[in-house]
Amino acid sequence: MIVITQPNATEEQIERIVTRVREFGLEAQISRGASRVIIGVIGPEALLREKPIAAMAGVEAIIPVLKPYKLAARDSRGASSVAIGDVRLGEHEDVVLICGPCSVESREQIQSIATMVKESGAKILRGGAFKPRTSPYSFQGLREEGLRFLAEARAKTGLPVVTEVMDARDLSMIERYADCLQVGTRNMHNFSLLKEVGRSRLPVLLKRGFSATIYDLMMSAEYILNEGNSNVVLCERGIRTFETAARYTLDLSAVPILKSKTHLPVIVDPTHALGLREFVPQMSLAAVAAGADALMIEVHDSPELAKSDGNQALTPEIFAELVPRLSAVAAAIGRAL
Amino acid sequence: MIVITQPNATEEQIERIVTRVREFGLEAQISRGASRVIIGVIGPEALLREKPIAAMAGVEAIIPVLKPYKLAARDSRGASSVAIGDVRLGEHEDVVLICGPCSVESREQIQSIATMVKESGAKILRGGAFKPRTSPYSFQGLREEGLRFLAEARAKTGLPVVTEVMDARDLSMIERYADCLQVGTRNMHNFSLLKEVGRSRLPVLLKRGFSATIYDLMMSAEYILNEGNSNVVLCERGIRTFETAARYTLDLSAVPILKSKTHLPVIVDPTHALGLREFVPQMSLAAVAAGADALMIEVHDSPELAKSDGNQALTPEIFAELVPRLSAVAAAIGRAL
Amino acid sequence: MIVITQPNATEEQIERIVTRVREFGLEAQISRGASRVIIGVIGPEALLREKPIAAMAGVEAIIPVLKPYKLAARDSRGASSVAIGDVRLGEHEDVVLICGPCSVESREQIQSIATMVKESGAKILRGGAFKPRTSPYSFQGLREEGLRFLAEARAKTGLPVVTEVMDARDLSMIERYADCLQVGTRNMHNFSLLKEVGRSRLPVLLKRGFSATIYDLMMSAEYILNEGNSNVVLCERGIRTFETAARYTLDLSAVPILKSKTHLPVIVDPTHALGLREFVPQMSLAAVAAGADALMIEVHDSPELAKSDGNQALTPEIFAELVPRLSAVAAAIGRAL
Amino acid sequence: MIVITQPNATEEQIERIVTRVREFGLEAQISRGASRVIIGVIGPEALLREKPIAAMAGVEAIIPVLKPYKLAARDSRGASSVAIGDVRLGEHEDVVLICGPCSVESREQIQSIATMVKESGAKILRGGAFKPRTSPYSFQGLREEGLRFLAEARAKTGLPVVTEVMDARDLSMIERYADCLQVGTRNMHNFSLLKEVGRSRLPVLLKRGFSATIYDLMMSAEYILNEGNSNVVLCERGIRTFETAARYTLDLSAVPILKSKTHLPVIVDPTHALGLREFVPQMSLAAVAAGADALMIEVHDSPELAKSDGNQALTPEIFAELVPRLSAVAAAIGRAL
Repeated sequence: MIVITQPNATEEQIERIVTRVREFGLEAQISRGASRVIIGVIGPEALLREKPIAAMAGVEAIIPVLKPYKLAARDSRGASSVAIGDVRLGEHEDVVLICGPCSVESREQIQSIATMVKESGAKILRGGAFKPRTSPYSFQGLREEGLRFLAEARAKTGLPVVTEVMDARDLSMIERYADCLQVGTRNMHNFSLLKEVGRSRLPVLLKRGFSATIYDLMMSAEYILNEGNSNVVLCERGIRTFETAARYTLDLSAVPILKSKTHLPVIVDPTHALGLREFVPQMSLAAVAAGADALMIEVHDSPELAKSDGNQALTPEIFAELVPRLSAVAAAIGRAL
Repeated sequence: MIVITQPNATEEQIERIVTRVREFGLEAQISRGASRVIIGVIGPEALLREKPIAAMAGVEAIIPVLKPYKLAARDSRGASSVAIGDVRLGEHEDVVLICGPCSVESREQIQSIATMVKESGAKILRGGAFKPRTSPYSFQGLREEGLRFLAEARAKTGLPVVTEVMDARDLSMIERYADCLQVGTRNMHNFSLLKEVGRSRLPVLLKRGFSATIYDLMMSAEYILNEGNSNVVLCERGIRTFETAARYTLDLSAVPILKSKTHLPVIVDPTHALGLREFVPQMSLAAVAAGADALMIEVHDSPELAKSDGNQALTPEIFAELVPRLSAVAAAIGRAL
Repeated sequence: MIVITQPNATEEQIERIVTRVREFGLEAQISRGASRVIIGVIGPEALLREKPIAAMAGVEAIIPVLKPYKLAARDSRGASSVAIGDVRLGEHEDVVLICGPCSVESREQIQSIATMVKESGAKILRGGAFKPRTSPYSFQGLREEGLRFLAEARAKTGLPVVTEVMDARDLSMIERYADCLQVGTRNMHNFSLLKEVGRSRLPVLLKRGFSATIYDLMMSAEYILNEGNSNVVLCERGIRTFETAARYTLDLSAVPILKSKTHLPVIVDPTHALGLREFVPQMSLAAVAAGADALMIEVHDSPELAKSDGNQALTPEIFAELVPRLSAVAAAIGRAL
Repeated sequence: MIVITQPNATEEQIERIVTRVREFGLEAQISRGASRVIIGVIGPEALLREKPIAAMAGVEAIIPVLKPYKLAARDSRGASSVAIGDVRLGEHEDVVLICGPCSVESREQIQSIATMVKESGAKILRGGAFKPRTSPYSFQGLREEGLRFLAEARAKTGLPVVTEVMDARDLSMIERYADCLQVGTRNMHNFSLLKEVGRSRLPVLLKRGFSATIYDLMMSAEYILNEGNSNVVLCERGIRTFETAARYTLDLSAVPILKSKTHLPVIVDPTHALGLREFVPQMSLAAVAAGADALMIEVHDSPELAKSDGNQALTPEIFAELVPRLSAVAAAIGRAL
């Protein structure tokens, strides 16, 4: 931690800051510039966090040096890989396609879509049984019945299942059916839920909050890791900006930036970022080129009848055409699909 | 709802859209422009919401006309008022000061601060017992002990208490101690929690998500209202933008805009928006001038020792100096403090 | 400037950085933490700016300590005041109202509006003769004829005139008619234009770019001041965010923040920020409470017929009703209108 | 254009709106819903633009239907291609690499870099002679000398030259040396400059303003096209958001979205978007996969000594390694480099 004093800080104020730092059992190293004093604070990370030195008189700014995430941070061990069912995600694994409808709507719907996406190359099935919806009057999901349909579709196709958990109280029920727990964009800052999924035996797919920084996302992963669950996958799914041409702005730079900071797998959901089916193929190709370890793509066999988000899902036909192109881009950067 | 077709939409596509609209039991009125057809869809709101017409071929855009919030919407009845303990908040009530520390840290701390802010003019006590923190390694609150200290401070000062609920499973415990439930900015989209507080007998102070639009905030209020709890107070507390000079950008325009759209009381939290004590007084004055029905201001008697957010809290002395100025601005716009 | 090394920086890299710093004639002070080395670089500001130390191997981050604006910075001399015609703007002056239509449309229009706003209390007349418009097909202003009408309105009412300059080549013409040059939000980063108005004898009203940080605005002011023109007024006029309920998000916190950093007068334009006449009165009151030294408010006598931005202008009647309330808020914070 | 009335609009107000519309020579078609009236306004685009109907009593919203860009809009003719020197950019052309340093610093520097990037596969040379810098104290470019060095580098390597124009008064000088005029991100809204380059015989590379919407970018292109210059290339270069991990957020979705709306070539500048050399390779690959028609990449032979933006430029070695991977991704989507 570095403390920068105000240009007009008095010697007394500076001394008081240094004394406080030393009272905390930390070391203080002082550099005097022409107008400001810089105090390097050295010591164990845990001690440094909670100290309100910024509130002291004479302090202009506090600059943290150590990153507050340690379990999520990339270190000498390099990239880790996470298994969802028997499918592995990670930098040294093949690129994985995670597909399915936005919501599970019926047994037939999810089985039919699961079969089709599997044939085209998807390795994991997605589908929502609990739906976070902006409006209380919108379709909220089939709940346990939806989970059952997902498990049946897995039994039929062999695809492991990822589905969203919105409430800690539903967790044990979802754990009975799913292979991976998704924490959605609107819950990335729901710290109670993060702690709960951190105690689950299932891997967690953590979506970036649509207004969360990369730093925030790392810290939310840290909550899960800190509870003992080391199987966390990070998912970029678009951030909220001033641009309104698409629903969100897909921040693909987050892929290489996250990979430089964390050992966790990083995946991309172009469907929810764009909200417009028309542009999903190009952004899927771009995500693979940027280094995404998996793509999460919505596929629906009759988008016009979908109970949620119909105009963003690819049809099975368009998806089937896209897969070989994704495969070619993966090969171009030295990976397989 | 208005459907606008693409310039090159075929007659067949247009007919198919109109047929679909009518199958839903809705009326379709067609206007033909030089290059596009505009289809006005008329009928009961509930029917219109879930219809995925946007996914149909030939559709360029769908424009909703009716607002999807109905319980939160302002109508002929005008502004409502909400009671927290025996203090009323609303457009036709006095402007209220809600003060206290960020976190409850000890019995002495909360009692001492409660006494001081009451003397200066605060009418409601705030203090966190459950703290949402970006880092799992930061202080997470005293939990039930903190709630007990808050209740004791209320017994001593008579100030009703507002405190944050982060997890539906803590709700019944918090209800035993508090007079008002706060839903924090990071939970504004936690729909499970919104539904739970919607079933509480206590009023709810709903903070705007830091990246939620005014529309989103109205929809989250609708979740609570729809469960039967009509005592909802909306709180502007800063949004995330590109500007980094303060922690968030306080969106004071949200005050008059919300008041034009909803009957619910609208209050402002300048402390969390700015994150810098230095500018809290001016923005408090501005919030009252903009029409806020209450201000939520953090006050701490020794900010340098605070366990969270020390450098944003006002000292009791600065707060005491601010109150008469707030009172004067309130009077200038025809209100009392 | 502080250089923070990467955790794995080698001794050789650190030595190379220190050597480079010293080659530049600067002093380097080294603090060693557990995992990183912190190098304090001390020396004359000008030398530090252009040195690409950040590009050196082993460097994690460079943190500037000195602010790069020096002429705009607040120092021991406190707030300055700027004269537009015979009207003074500044922290120690009365709050000033700058009013008029968006565009000058005709001699009658500008004279009529000027007369009405003067009667209600405006002290400076605004009106555009050169209009920056997003579309090339929109009305672009009356140009020199518009300037002439403005000068005639000044002759009739005595109100000094502020008008926008979009192109350095129009500057000498505009200088013949106006009392103050406005640089608009879309030109805040037009460094050529900033230098030109920096050489003018007229004061400059510099609008914040709608996506400029407070820091950027200070730097653009520095361009003007650096050319010798010390009469610069800064204007907050809304920034672009994700919120779409109003045209821009008025960042009123910028007022006290700017005042803490610069000696220049700071004013607010609520009209262009909101783009909606309905909310201009409340935000005008809030701007005065936040400490604005002047307000820029659009007034049009027949908004329905305005050639630009008709639905944001106040009518003269609404403006006349607003003035005494602005006056009361100013008095509440110890200022006069 | 569609006019939506307020729920409580009176019959008189509706009639007044309809009358006004018809006075303008336009047709009005009325649809009555349960609570609002929808008025479809039909007629020539030019007439509709300037009519301030939104300011009329009883109007809730105005929704434009026709897009105000017509020259930039994609139509039945499909994609166009633009020649810079003898290199063609466009959807049906090869993907082009535009490389060089941020600033021209000396004859030797630009010749050496030009030679190296040409050998690796670049087809166009970039380099700034006039530099827009946030600070007036930063290096502002070599001006005409820089242009001369660029022209000499072209003579030596055969690479056509693109360089930035910041001021209309420099235009004729720049035209004597360059093959393509760049309008930078900070001048995208400088309408005077847009009109001037619209009258040039040279093609224009128009960079997206860092806070400009896709719509704004199209409108700025329209300014140039409307003056008669049909050779416009659009460049995505990052937008300003809340994320601070990179300098800007590269909005790659803008590539397919722009291509769906305009016939103009669309290119990407990952260097300025990221501001961090480390992530430029991955985002260059992603940009090609997203469909970019060219990439603009900064290359500097000794970034540590660069006079501007040293820590974002690739070294010639890293660039040389990147080119075959770009080529492979281009091939994967059916294009050549």
